[in-house]
Amino acid sequence: MIKIVEVGPRDGLQNEKQIISTEDKFTFISLLAAAGLRNIEVTSFVKAPAIPQMVDAHDLFTRVRNELSGTGGNYPCLVPNMKGYEAARAVGVKEIALFSATSDAFTRKNINASVDESFVRMAEVAQEAKKDGVRMRGYVSTAFGCPYEGRMEAGKLLRVLNRFLDLGVHEVSVGDTIGVAVPKDVRAYVREIKNEIGLGKVAMHFHDTRGMALTNILVSLEEGITTFDSSAGGLGGCPYAKGATGNVATEDVWYLLTSQGLETGVELAKLAEASKFILGKIGRQTESKFLRAYLATGKA
Amino acid sequence: MIKIVEVGPRDGLQNEKQIISTEDKFTFISLLAAAGLRNIEVTSFVKAPAIPQMVDAHDLFTRVRNELSGTGGNYPCLVPNMKGYEAARAVGVKEIALFSATSDAFTRKNINASVDESFVRMAEVAQEAKKDGVRMRGYVSTAFGCPYEGRMEAGKLLRVLNRFLDLGVHEVSVGDTIGVAVPKDVRAYVREIKNEIGLGKVAMHFHDTRGMALTNILVSLEEGITTFDSSAGGLGGCPYAKGATGNVATEDVWYLLTSQGLETGVELAKLAEASKFILGKIGRQTESKFLRAYLATGKA
Repeated sequence: MIKIVEVGPRDGLQNEKQIISTEDKFTFISLLAAAGLRNIEVTSFVKAPAIPQMVDAHDLFTRVRNELSGTGGNYPCLVPNMKGYEAARAVGVKEIALFSATSDAFTRKNINASVDESFVRMAEVAQEAKKDGVRMRGYVSTAFGCPYEGRMEAGKLLRVLNRFLDLGVHEVSVGDTIGVAVPKDVRAYVREIKNEIGLGKVAMHFHDTRGMALTNILVSLEEGITTFDSSAGGLGGCPYAKGATGNVATEDVWYLLTSQGLETGVELAKLAEASKFILGKIGRQTESKFLRAYLATGKA
Repeated sequence: MIKIVEVGPRDGLQNEKQIISTEDKFTFISLLAAAGLRNIEVTSFVKAPAIPQMVDAHDLFTRVRNELSGTGGNYPCLVPNMKGYEAARAVGVKEIALFSATSDAFTRKNINASVDESFVRMAEVAQEAKKDGVRMRGYVSTAFGCPYEGRMEAGKLLRVLNRFLDLGVHEVSVGDTIGVAVPKDVRAYVREIKNEIGLGKVAMHFHDTRGMALTNILVSLEEGITTFDSSAGGLGGCPYAKGATGNVATEDVWYLLTSQGLETGVELAKLAEASKFILGKIGRQTESKFLRAYLATGKA
């Protein structure tokens, strides 16, 4: 069984310009849950004007809490700092996602802090979360490359992974934020992680900016990774390359995994329904070639 | 060194509705040659009304012969039968491409003949070509699956490959015509070919209809394949799934191969120039995510 962490409602929508209503976001999340996804990142508790798509975090999570708690799924929410954590806790969030990067230049531009400073902030949040019994997931951005610093070596990634594990996260996701990872590097980096840390708590998060996401997932699978982040329909773009693709599509991941004989617990027809719904609201076609062929032919 | 057989001008354009002028086709081919591609499939010598995009085969090849013979490249042309062969020979074609499939239903729909009958026709052509000193390349369509007969077993592929080799082709291309191949099958089929026939004369020809082309190329490389067909900019669609993608883009193949540390002899900037030119004439965007990111950022 391979675990898919669906990040479309947060990482995907965050990078879509079209503002989606809370009602439509909730419908999207409900359809994803109905498709069998048991880990769906719902939203981000950021300061209101920072990311307009996320201003309804409180209302959206309230509906998720009230209406989807029976699904048995996890509904993590991104939390950038203590203020965000407090807002998330107030509405009953049970799993938070914390984030940093391997690149100081990136974290400075993104959250106005060095990597070290980001861990100081997160340590405060983590301390509270542990007291509250809230689960934590970590994200390492720019794991393979940074738009400002260029190529990132595996050593930096290992250090940041260890710092996240020290915080007490149950899982940490290795993010190829700008989609520069290639299979050769992925195999090498995952092997280093396997040797130095182990893969039990490690997820891979690929963007398909340069069309390499599935080759990267294939070699990750071969090396023993069992958790992947993806976004229904390939929602989201890449803020660092205008017009380029963002998150790998959950449908693409489903097809690759299924074709390899692996179970995901996800029902394709229902997943496609969720993607079709949200893409219709955004008013664009999917970036997933597989989903396009599936919608055109009605079969996988 | 990996050999890329550029099929955009033939397999790509054949599946584009927009009719391109002979002048523009020639410019496209010249740009591809300038990018370093040494094997470019130029056109198809079919009966005039069958494929409107190919009615200028005689004139186009005349220009290629007169103006590009100094490049040292091969400029194969598709030939469906003796009549096509005679037309190709008359204009000085030095390499022909012959084609059949693993599926009788497919060859019947495509050329109104069973697979056996197609080999009777091709044997006549091959006999003449050998006398004339014309090189031959073979194509096996529907190698992994057929739009009418469904899944195709490796045994059928092996038999058709052997029949092509018996005809005297210097290379035979294994075509995933409808883009249903997945890495697991590709690995298994290529291993069977390796064990039964050897890979020295075998090329792989993937369509990206379901986004699996690069994963399939990756496992083909791992198994020892050294020749791949592709289409600049991902030209061409899939006639069996409306709106779906066709040939894998040469740029995608270039990026994967280069990232694996393999040489192609192809210069990306010039290749992208060729794709940009022809896509401009067709009036659509590329299906290659890598090429889109490259055009947006100006770097690989």
